[in-house]
Amino acid sequence: MTPRGHRAPLGVFDSGLGGLTVVRALRAAFPAESLIYLGDTARVPYGTRSPETIVRYARACARVLVERGVKALVVACNTVSAIALELLRAELDLPVLGVVEPGALSAVRALERWAAEQAAESPKALRIGVLGTASTIASGAYPRAVARLSTRYEVVGQPAPLLVPLVEEGWTEGEVPRLVVRRYVEPLIDAGARVVVLGCTHYPLLESVIAEVAADLAGAPVPVVDSAVATADAVGEALRDERIPAAPRMAGAQLEIYVTDRPQSFTGVARRFLGADLGKVEQIDLVSS
Amino acid sequence: MTPRGHRAPLGVFDSGLGGLTVVRALRAAFPAESLIYLGDTARVPYGTRSPETIVRYARACARVLVERGVKALVVACNTVSAIALELLRAELDLPVLGVVEPGALSAVRALERWAAEQAAESPKALRIGVLGTASTIASGAYPRAVARLSTRYEVVGQPAPLLVPLVEEGWTEGEVPRLVVRRYVEPLIDAGARVVVLGCTHYPLLESVIAEVAADLAGAPVPVVDSAVATADAVGEALRDERIPAAPRMAGAQLEIYVTDRPQSFTGVARRFLGADLGKVEQIDLVSS
Repeated sequence: MTPRGHRAPLGVFDSGLGGLTVVRALRAAFPAESLIYLGDTARVPYGTRSPETIVRYARACARVLVERGVKALVVACNTVSAIALELLRAELDLPVLGVVEPGALSAVRALERWAAEQAAESPKALRIGVLGTASTIASGAYPRAVARLSTRYEVVGQPAPLLVPLVEEGWTEGEVPRLVVRRYVEPLIDAGARVVVLGCTHYPLLESVIAEVAADLAGAPVPVVDSAVATADAVGEALRDERIPAAPRMAGAQLEIYVTDRPQSFTGVARRFLGADLGKVEQIDLVSS
Repeated sequence: MTPRGHRAPLGVFDSGLGGLTVVRALRAAFPAESLIYLGDTARVPYGTRSPETIVRYARACARVLVERGVKALVVACNTVSAIALELLRAELDLPVLGVVEPGALSAVRALERWAAEQAAESPKALRIGVLGTASTIASGAYPRAVARLSTRYEVVGQPAPLLVPLVEEGWTEGEVPRLVVRRYVEPLIDAGARVVVLGCTHYPLLESVIAEVAADLAGAPVPVVDSAVATADAVGEALRDERIPAAPRMAGAQLEIYVTDRPQSFTGVARRFLGADLGKVEQIDLVSS
């Protein structure tokens, strides 16, 4: 492990700006850490690309952040987390974290707590529901991640293609989001899911609607796992495991945001993801390997 | 103009499968003509690409169809129609038609009829409303096309990002589509639009909801222009103008469908676009110029 200064930033990338929900969770968990975010807005979405292309894009994004001296790399993109995480880990000399494994771990723990409280329920009925884009669900990344953690819990996935445009439209409250969410959550609850994983970085903005609808359908509270928050926890663990020093409390944390296209076009939706003003957004070009 | 046999097919391409609504309109208008459709499903959507990339993709699609001997080329993609139509026309030795110009022409004619019937209305209030993807609206293609036809009518555009996923989900009836459509159509009607252009090949599947909501908001019927139908009319005119022979009535029209990725994945939504079964869908690779 290359020694890196405690003031080195954490690096986060995503195909677009949804990964700013991960930045938000990281800032809440580690207010003293500086962050560099890269959104590959010129090539979003990654979900429809071939694995070779996704690997090429992921390497290019990672290189930009590694060259800027980050002390850990967070892949805030479900597609890259599903396809290219092992490869980035093998190639890079720093901790690399995705969003799928932390989300899966958090779901398994939530279900274990739930099962402990509801001792009467048959273990067979316990399922983890995952909402995601069509490509994330088709990739099978969440079932694989859960299977590595526990053979006890099955995963049931539900593609939810309307949720990203709803969030990007800022339409996260009221009748329409509730009806749309219900359409996607109902098959999960019907299939026995008693925890719902938000398997896309956009979905935390719909978390309260999803929790409300799921509880209504299940007749009891259903834990909703925000992968962004779970990922922030995993980053903390990784930094401790690797003995990478934390930033000093009074360091004056910075947030740098880079995109690959249209830096002015996304400030409205980006502010909602980040939960704060963005400051300056700079455009950079990526050179693919 | 290279002479082409009357049995030569018409060629249609789109970034994805939405252009099958244009195929549907062409089959209704010219039941004896054979058709070849190419959907570049490996690289959909085009709307977020750079102009250079869009030109490159459009040339590759056009080449496939020209090599198969089509007698006219229909660009059933708003993005390519907005960016690369003039270039394809200059480079290719056959009639090339887009979807934007026919839609604009049809809207101008509809508004002229409307104005003639409503003589009391001030001409200044007459506007053409266009629903489209964010990239189509941002391109300004419809205002430019209308300005070339008439200086009398202003265009007001409304990006409608939820409509494509609604159509792809097959969610084209009931409360949710009505509420979503209302959100997009209301600003158009409020701005004085008295005709609404469906500026995306997906939208014809929502035509009845859009017409209903627009009429409700305007307090009178609002013509809804289906660019696919308008494009079929324009193809008929172009064939006559260029003296390209029509297929004989009893020729036995064929429909060949090619995609660049996942030929099996789209049959459900494709059937809805086409309004009929697809038959065999073949996968081909495109080599970009």
